[in-house]
Amino acid sequence: MKAMEFCGAIDVGGTKIASALFTREGEISAKDKISIDKSGGEAAAGQVGDKIEALAKAVRAVGGRLAAVGISVPGIATSASGKVWAPNIPGWDQYPLLDKLKERQECAIVLESDRSAYVAGESWRGAAAGARDAVFLAVGTGIGAGIISGGRILHGHEDIAGAVGWFGLNPAFKPEYASMGSFEAEASGNSVARKARELLERGMASSILDLAGGRVEAVTAEVVAEAARKKDPLALEIVAETVTYLAMGIANIVSILNPEVVVVGGGLFQAADVFLDPVRREFKRWAQPLAARTVRIELSALGEDAGLYGCAKLAWDRREADS
Amino acid sequence: MKAMEFCGAIDVGGTKIASALFTREGEISAKDKISIDKSGGEAAAGQVGDKIEALAKAVRAVGGRLAAVGISVPGIATSASGKVWAPNIPGWDQYPLLDKLKERQECAIVLESDRSAYVAGESWRGAAAGARDAVFLAVGTGIGAGIISGGRILHGHEDIAGAVGWFGLNPAFKPEYASMGSFEAEASGNSVARKARELLERGMASSILDLAGGRVEAVTAEVVAEAARKKDPLALEIVAETVTYLAMGIANIVSILNPEVVVVGGGLFQAADVFLDPVRREFKRWAQPLAARTVRIELSALGEDAGLYGCAKLAWDRREADS
Repeated sequence: MKAMEFCGAIDVGGTKIASALFTREGEISAKDKISIDKSGGEAAAGQVGDKIEALAKAVRAVGGRLAAVGISVPGIATSASGKVWAPNIPGWDQYPLLDKLKERQECAIVLESDRSAYVAGESWRGAAAGARDAVFLAVGTGIGAGIISGGRILHGHEDIAGAVGWFGLNPAFKPEYASMGSFEAEASGNSVARKARELLERGMASSILDLAGGRVEAVTAEVVAEAARKKDPLALEIVAETVTYLAMGIANIVSILNPEVVVVGGGLFQAADVFLDPVRREFKRWAQPLAARTVRIELSALGEDAGLYGCAKLAWDRREADS
Repeated sequence: MKAMEFCGAIDVGGTKIASALFTREGEISAKDKISIDKSGGEAAAGQVGDKIEALAKAVRAVGGRLAAVGISVPGIATSASGKVWAPNIPGWDQYPLLDKLKERQECAIVLESDRSAYVAGESWRGAAAGARDAVFLAVGTGIGAGIISGGRILHGHEDIAGAVGWFGLNPAFKPEYASMGSFEAEASGNSVARKARELLERGMASSILDLAGGRVEAVTAEVVAEAARKKDPLALEIVAETVTYLAMGIANIVSILNPEVVVVGGGLFQAADVFLDPVRREFKRWAQPLAARTVRIELSALGEDAGLYGCAKLAWDRREADS
């Protein structure tokens, strides 16, 4: 009898490394999460290598075979070189992660950027299941997109496609656009919080401050959303402005890529009740009308597991290609 | 001895049908251009069919073989159905062009939208030669883009990808955005002319009017560019605003797709001396910095032949795939 095959998924985040095993049908098992050792690039790579060995061991224990492992990194994975860049992991600046892992492992390994893993996961077993043209838009501390077009992940010339946080959405250039791009400066979770804090510091009256325990520095996007639920005028104003920028950003994605579905996720959409339906209405004003009519805007179905599912899908794709 | 093979290229425009033969190496011959019969969908389709027969006859006359024909349409070609939509050709509204042509022809036929043909041509023998990640941005009466990503034309879910004229670039929604999108309303050749005419009609003094022979209705983007060359203040203001929007639009393309090269063409860039270098400087302020550093912004090298070259490339690709 042939040994049952599994693929491994390792989602390296900014602070944690999540891992799991997947069957070909997408059943998940052996889910685990550890904190990243940030003492240097070798330390984090060592943790990933240990994790692959642990997954292989778990598979052997049930008489199975680890067919391939997909790994996502919180930054950019360069497909040609196997090097990674991840601003939150010390030492991962053009770090040769693939070579390091291959010194220890014989198993096939696929590296991918986190946003590409998210869209791969959602289009495999999530809110975009079955779609060959799908986008995952992550709106959290920053803004970025993973893109599948015609059934393939879109990488671009240097593997940095999807940097939609840099969309220019307002010709009146502001200083903060220079460091993060205009979409991100106007609509990320961090930017929503920053705008609220700036207005409060200028002395604007709002229940936002009460909800943050009277401390301006404790204001977050979630606090602004909570104040908006209670109809606080300042919060409603910030939300309305954010919705306009989110709608423009999504419309721009829809007009250029003509996707079947845009999956939205990330910290800001934890408050989907506040942001999602207004965005769904508003983006139609901005997008190419035919493309706007057919596209679906969906909330992530896999949540924080999107990256794991994506890593598993990429690993299974590699397994198919190799066989 | 094997008969020498040629591919045919037929570029259906808004008013003319251009055609030519191409060798596998990209040598062009038998170039021709006729006016479109606009008496109905069948008439125009008949002209295309006649043209294919004429190309086949020309090839037979030199003892060769017509391997395949690529045809571009000024609108949308739906790859799955072989139907076309072209607003400037009466009757071509979900018109079954491929089926109609196949009634008469046995030769392999590929249909494509014009903007996709342009990028295919430029990345074969033009300003993006050899690039696997390239965009053609056409800025004329309207604005649209053809996209090649990872060596493949990007079509989207319903073959309408590249509708970048609909990019939202200014959150202050204006009525004209509703019918054509904000990028096109701010930066197309028609919009540049419209802005100048509106300002002149409001009584602004400018040499633009003199250059248009004193007739407001004779003002075109080319006239505005000519006035800008002569340092007319109003013209310089319109050009500066247009440059900002062009830079934002190109930056947005660069940030989301990470192309190796963006080829610009179309009527507005006939005045490349006025628009191109300012756009090249300004877009870097808006685009993702790594992607902006490596991308080239180039003027179309093939000009009005870009569509023919693209049709030929698509035909040769089909020939390779079939063999």
